[in-house]
Amino acid sequence: MNRSELIAEIRKKKSFLCVGLDPDMSKIPACLKEEEDVIFAFNKAIIDATLDYAVAYKPNLAFYEAYGLKGMMSLKKTIDYLQKFNVFTIADAKRGDIGNTSLKYAQAYLDPKGDFNFNAITVAPYMGEDSVKPFLQVPDKWVVLLALTSNPGARDFQNLEIAGGANNGAATASASAATEKHLYEQVLRTSSSWGNDENMMYVVGATRAEFLSDVRRIIPKHFLLVPGVGAQGGSLEEVCRYGLSDEIGLLINASRSILYASSGADFAQAAREEAARMQQQMQAYVR
Amino acid sequence: MNRSELIAEIRKKKSFLCVGLDPDMSKIPACLKEEEDVIFAFNKAIIDATLDYAVAYKPNLAFYEAYGLKGMMSLKKTIDYLQKFNVFTIADAKRGDIGNTSLKYAQAYLDPKGDFNFNAITVAPYMGEDSVKPFLQVPDKWVVLLALTSNPGARDFQNLEIAGGANNGAATASASAATEKHLYEQVLRTSSSWGNDENMMYVVGATRAEFLSDVRRIIPKHFLLVPGVGAQGGSLEEVCRYGLSDEIGLLINASRSILYASSGADFAQAAREEAARMQQQMQAYVR
Repeated sequence: MNRSELIAEIRKKKSFLCVGLDPDMSKIPACLKEEEDVIFAFNKAIIDATLDYAVAYKPNLAFYEAYGLKGMMSLKKTIDYLQKFNVFTIADAKRGDIGNTSLKYAQAYLDPKGDFNFNAITVAPYMGEDSVKPFLQVPDKWVVLLALTSNPGARDFQNLEIAGGANNGAATASASAATEKHLYEQVLRTSSSWGNDENMMYVVGATRAEFLSDVRRIIPKHFLLVPGVGAQGGSLEEVCRYGLSDEIGLLINASRSILYASSGADFAQAAREEAARMQQQMQAYVR
Repeated sequence: MNRSELIAEIRKKKSFLCVGLDPDMSKIPACLKEEEDVIFAFNKAIIDATLDYAVAYKPNLAFYEAYGLKGMMSLKKTIDYLQKFNVFTIADAKRGDIGNTSLKYAQAYLDPKGDFNFNAITVAPYMGEDSVKPFLQVPDKWVVLLALTSNPGARDFQNLEIAGGANNGAATASASAATEKHLYEQVLRTSSSWGNDENMMYVVGATRAEFLSDVRRIIPKHFLLVPGVGAQGGSLEEVCRYGLSDEIGLLINASRSILYASSGADFAQAAREEAARMQQQMQAYVR
């Protein structure tokens, strides 16, 4: 799915909701426990229930790898099922390695001939350009690069001030240059030249919505994948105020608040209602 | 395997060689192509051939994930086989996510009851403390945190200078404080308080051996996992000169130079000879 197709879907559904498919055996409703593949049965029910209100789905691979080979089979069934629909799919994998190895990860999660044919993969930036570029070589696929995450540990390194930050990156003579010097801003500035807004998105957490205006100064057009609304406490309204671009430019992710909206037999209906509630908040912002 | 057991094995074999098990179908000798599980057959032959000279084995997960479910089955057979021997096993996964998700990755690769029971896992530091600590909660297991990697892209962010670096971390009044301000040094300084030298190691690439003395000022005792000797051009002698600690403190990894020492039917013998050659260089440093 390319950028214009994604924007068309957002306008059609009046939604930029991404549902995080993070199945946790300890939270999956008891009524599913007799299923042969509990994780896939749960995911399928959630996908069916939320499809009217979501444009993207994002399985976090940790929740599949945790269950070993069986979990990876559930992941395969999930991505195969998602491909029946016109939705954007993100492997939330946070991978990244030296060039020849990142190429293998790209093969694993972006190759149309492989077991896991996603539209996009999340990538960690720490190892730099040659760890990211191999993913960008796969035609019609996307990298979603970590910039500013929603967890407390984001402060440890992402918010560190870079010495002479404004002078290290692309030329900038804006009045705001003095503040553009955190590590995450350097990551945005440096990496945005590796691809473009047709094959790169960025993770920017909702729990720090006030930073979104700084982000938008550096990358006005790129799509942002925004976790942290819902269970982690971020505000959808604030994210839109600071992060909306002239072509929407946002995918807002919710995982636990949708998946586990009810722990009973009505879990799918409850998930649908929570997705609908978020879509109703979003529709005002879709022009 | 704990620290003192690892050191005992290093002294017994007079080797601190780690063999990187990165099976690439395009490079695996033709004589194995009829095997039912080509990757495992290759790994088993390499393990058997190098066991006298290596204390650690490090499958890089990208090379298994690239082959989908089948690749993950080869990984399971490989770690199960490695457990028959008294060797240190590292899942080179470079994972890291928000706390509840990193816990799932720990479950995936460090849990003795799971499919992939490794001694250690490599972790990327970008998401900070709560992305690393869940791995440290697993008893008797290790985190190998990325600090300074061996690839060209390491320069993009790891070598950035941090503003007022020497003042941000633990108190330091050493004469060298002025130089201790790159991001990778901040990563070392900050993260070393999250665990200790019994449950944390660091990745420091051999292609930048001169940085190892800076690393040793910050973490004198931790084991370092050093990639980049061999195919990537790093020098074993230089790594030892700058990186050796009073209890050795090094695991030097070689992957391609051992795995693909010959592309013929003698590949295992050639791998054995290359591992022996490295061990012979190492034995002078083992006291």
